[in-house]
Amino acid sequence: MDRRAFNRRVLLGGAAVATSMSVTSMAPEAAGAEDPARTAPAGGEIRHIRLYAEKLADGRMAYGLEKGKASVPGPLIELDEGDTLHIEFENTMDVAASLHVHGLDYEVSSDGTKMNHGDVEPGGARTYTWRTHAPGRRKDGTWRAGSAGYWHYHDHVVGTEHGTGGIRKGLYGPVIVRRKGDILPDRTHTIVFNDMTINNRPPHTGPDFEATVGDRVEFVMITHGEYYHTFHLHGHRWADNRTGLLTGPDDPSQVIDNKIVGPADSFGFQVIAGEGVGAGAWMYHCHVQSHSDMGMVGLFLVKKPDGTIPGYEHHEHHESHAP
Amino acid sequence: MDRRAFNRRVLLGGAAVATSMSVTSMAPEAAGAEDPARTAPAGGEIRHIRLYAEKLADGRMAYGLEKGKASVPGPLIELDEGDTLHIEFENTMDVAASLHVHGLDYEVSSDGTKMNHGDVEPGGARTYTWRTHAPGRRKDGTWRAGSAGYWHYHDHVVGTEHGTGGIRKGLYGPVIVRRKGDILPDRTHTIVFNDMTINNRPPHTGPDFEATVGDRVEFVMITHGEYYHTFHLHGHRWADNRTGLLTGPDDPSQVIDNKIVGPADSFGFQVIAGEGVGAGAWMYHCHVQSHSDMGMVGLFLVKKPDGTIPGYEHHEHHESHAP
Amino acid sequence: MDRRAFNRRVLLGGAAVATSMSVTSMAPEAAGAEDPARTAPAGGEIRHIRLYAEKLADGRMAYGLEKGKASVPGPLIELDEGDTLHIEFENTMDVAASLHVHGLDYEVSSDGTKMNHGDVEPGGARTYTWRTHAPGRRKDGTWRAGSAGYWHYHDHVVGTEHGTGGIRKGLYGPVIVRRKGDILPDRTHTIVFNDMTINNRPPHTGPDFEATVGDRVEFVMITHGEYYHTFHLHGHRWADNRTGLLTGPDDPSQVIDNKIVGPADSFGFQVIAGEGVGAGAWMYHCHVQSHSDMGMVGLFLVKKPDGTIPGYEHHEHHESHAP
Repeated sequence: MDRRAFNRRVLLGGAAVATSMSVTSMAPEAAGAEDPARTAPAGGEIRHIRLYAEKLADGRMAYGLEKGKASVPGPLIELDEGDTLHIEFENTMDVAASLHVHGLDYEVSSDGTKMNHGDVEPGGARTYTWRTHAPGRRKDGTWRAGSAGYWHYHDHVVGTEHGTGGIRKGLYGPVIVRRKGDILPDRTHTIVFNDMTINNRPPHTGPDFEATVGDRVEFVMITHGEYYHTFHLHGHRWADNRTGLLTGPDDPSQVIDNKIVGPADSFGFQVIAGEGVGAGAWMYHCHVQSHSDMGMVGLFLVKKPDGTIPGYEHHEHHESHAP
Repeated sequence: MDRRAFNRRVLLGGAAVATSMSVTSMAPEAAGAEDPARTAPAGGEIRHIRLYAEKLADGRMAYGLEKGKASVPGPLIELDEGDTLHIEFENTMDVAASLHVHGLDYEVSSDGTKMNHGDVEPGGARTYTWRTHAPGRRKDGTWRAGSAGYWHYHDHVVGTEHGTGGIRKGLYGPVIVRRKGDILPDRTHTIVFNDMTINNRPPHTGPDFEATVGDRVEFVMITHGEYYHTFHLHGHRWADNRTGLLTGPDDPSQVIDNKIVGPADSFGFQVIAGEGVGAGAWMYHCHVQSHSDMGMVGLFLVKKPDGTIPGYEHHEHHESHAP
Repeated sequence: MDRRAFNRRVLLGGAAVATSMSVTSMAPEAAGAEDPARTAPAGGEIRHIRLYAEKLADGRMAYGLEKGKASVPGPLIELDEGDTLHIEFENTMDVAASLHVHGLDYEVSSDGTKMNHGDVEPGGARTYTWRTHAPGRRKDGTWRAGSAGYWHYHDHVVGTEHGTGGIRKGLYGPVIVRRKGDILPDRTHTIVFNDMTINNRPPHTGPDFEATVGDRVEFVMITHGEYYHTFHLHGHRWADNRTGLLTGPDDPSQVIDNKIVGPADSFGFQVIAGEGVGAGAWMYHCHVQSHSDMGMVGLFLVKKPDGTIPGYEHHEHHESHAP
């Protein structure tokens, strides 16, 4: 199986389920460190997916690409600038729900708010259309930003007119829009600080993410709920800009390993696993002291090529996400 | 009436009152999208205004350019880098008050703190002087930043030595300093998240802002009080940098539609109303879920050229700010 | 005495003690404003220091370079990109403690977490190794960020597995990694918003920092604990980027005088004391209104060349840090 496609499957509850919708072209096998980094192609395609809002057995609510296979966070949706995505959305729940996206272009009818008639009744369906665009110069000479970014989608209807109930229960997911030439990762992980949880999981249960030294690993970090947090990763850093990567020696962006975030903020970055620091069990956590103490912690498990992690004894209660 | 001047009048309590002091040169009628964008001229002028601190009938406190016409937020003060502004300040209230500005150059006597004797007794008056400067290279070879930015002023005396009481009641307003060549908007709106209110208004009452598709609309976003917030705008985005606009393809700034802010933070940006998304009633709100649910919400009402807004039924309780 | 070295001594409790470990080359006497600014050299050295964790008589915990001379914040550690630092750490306290650093390169054994066996028992000792690197291009063509930045270190063990107890009591300090060519300040001050204190001091007691108009003063600002804050400085501004300084006219970074921060965030900047505004007692404070009212305030005391400060009467309760 293509490594990239394989990366997009995670073991959840014992069954291998697709939790990501990649609408970018599949790239060849991840290259060795001496080969040029793979980059995103130009966009411009029109794509279609189905998305389901579902109630999970444990009371959570979730989005999924197939019926019965919803996950929290919902599937990663990747687009290239210029792509259009039509989403056939079906609400299988017993309460009205919707889909609101950040950062992308959509007519007000695809806004996902009740005010703009974007809600979908229980058992109902509708199509939301998201568009993206490349940057360029306007006729008045000014520069128009492109759609590229680490964005996200969420419900805007359940519980309150701002979707407070839906978000709390898990109706959210990541969106990445890439620019032609953006560097592609070997794999992507999503971390959502939702109130005092990470990805709506019980405290002190991760999620953990595995990699091998030298892998180019991408993180999408989203915040939801009531509280501010500070996202911290041990042993790795990123640039506080659009891609999380510096464009070169003249990029003035601050390089950080800790960032204050609030509800609906999102950012992303790529690291080379273990670069300059080696293999290890590297914590990531909210650095608000009581939040980390209450369990907003997971591990970035960077293995040596032989699969071992120095100094790390696996804790049974940590459920690891194999790549 | 010149369109730009007209934009600077808002309907407040039934009477048309001037709530902005534009000390930049009046520009010609907003240009069509195919004409070059208008830009700010070089500064260097010495200007004078009067500013009054007043108690409003409903208990709020406010700054105004004329007696009896104070507003919350106070008037927009626009300067070009190099300008000097002398403010003849009169305190018409029954408590001491002051004027403290962010970002600009002022001698410590114009600091607006009691410690530096910047307070003005009830019925008293004094002159505050604000200066601005263009960027340039120092004699030691280093680069000195200019004054350009989205700044703000507020009381630093009422209630506590930090003006907590004055700010809470409405003693604040926006300041924009422009650099020669900065793109000028068709109009400017100010949004202040002050504790759990927007511009000290009752919850769920906006303010709403009107525009027509294609207008270049500027927002100045200021935060005050006790709480952190996240400012979110539907269907439009901005760059997280000095102007809110990218300088071109090499600008690494993140493009966002959601930003965490805390007391005394300020930023600004321009959007082309409805660009890529069309007309509509686009929400802006604090994205902290309880804050939006409690009513920290307003509308950016983007009309078609015929004046209609698709899918939008006007809600009586929304008081709209006509341009 | 060399001015720079002199700057690194602060009066604390009546005794002159070294509270900073400068491992950069000593630069010649600070130059006049018309001489080129001094810049950081290339790194690449291997350095060694001793660091002690100590309990202070008043119950605080602190790091120090010499036994009996620990301070809150701990000593400033300065490195140049490429340097390696071996820290012989001794824990003189009666509880286990550790040393965790942000931003630098360290193997997981120097992580400072209990999980990675980085804790040091009472009376115990161990060596932590921190490495830094210059930026450069990877073999795959992508750009690797360098280590330069305003970072910090703190305990990760006392009280909880995240060091909540150690941080609360004072086990934290600043780290600066400089890039070849970075502009060097005349002196550096550290401000830590730790819960509702500045540098664990009683409310309304500063710290205050003295300078003379024209001095190039560097501030390192770190946050710890539970709360978000907004750091505000009167009369001076900085750029929201890696150095706090603009690289030149094309740098799009926002210039600010107020910044929202949360636990473990850190940033730094340099100002020319009194530039464009003159001498004065310039407040810095948290701009969350209740935090400033409760005493999260200090003074940046900028003197005229004759040593006077216009309009300022010294308050006895302010303990000033002479340069």
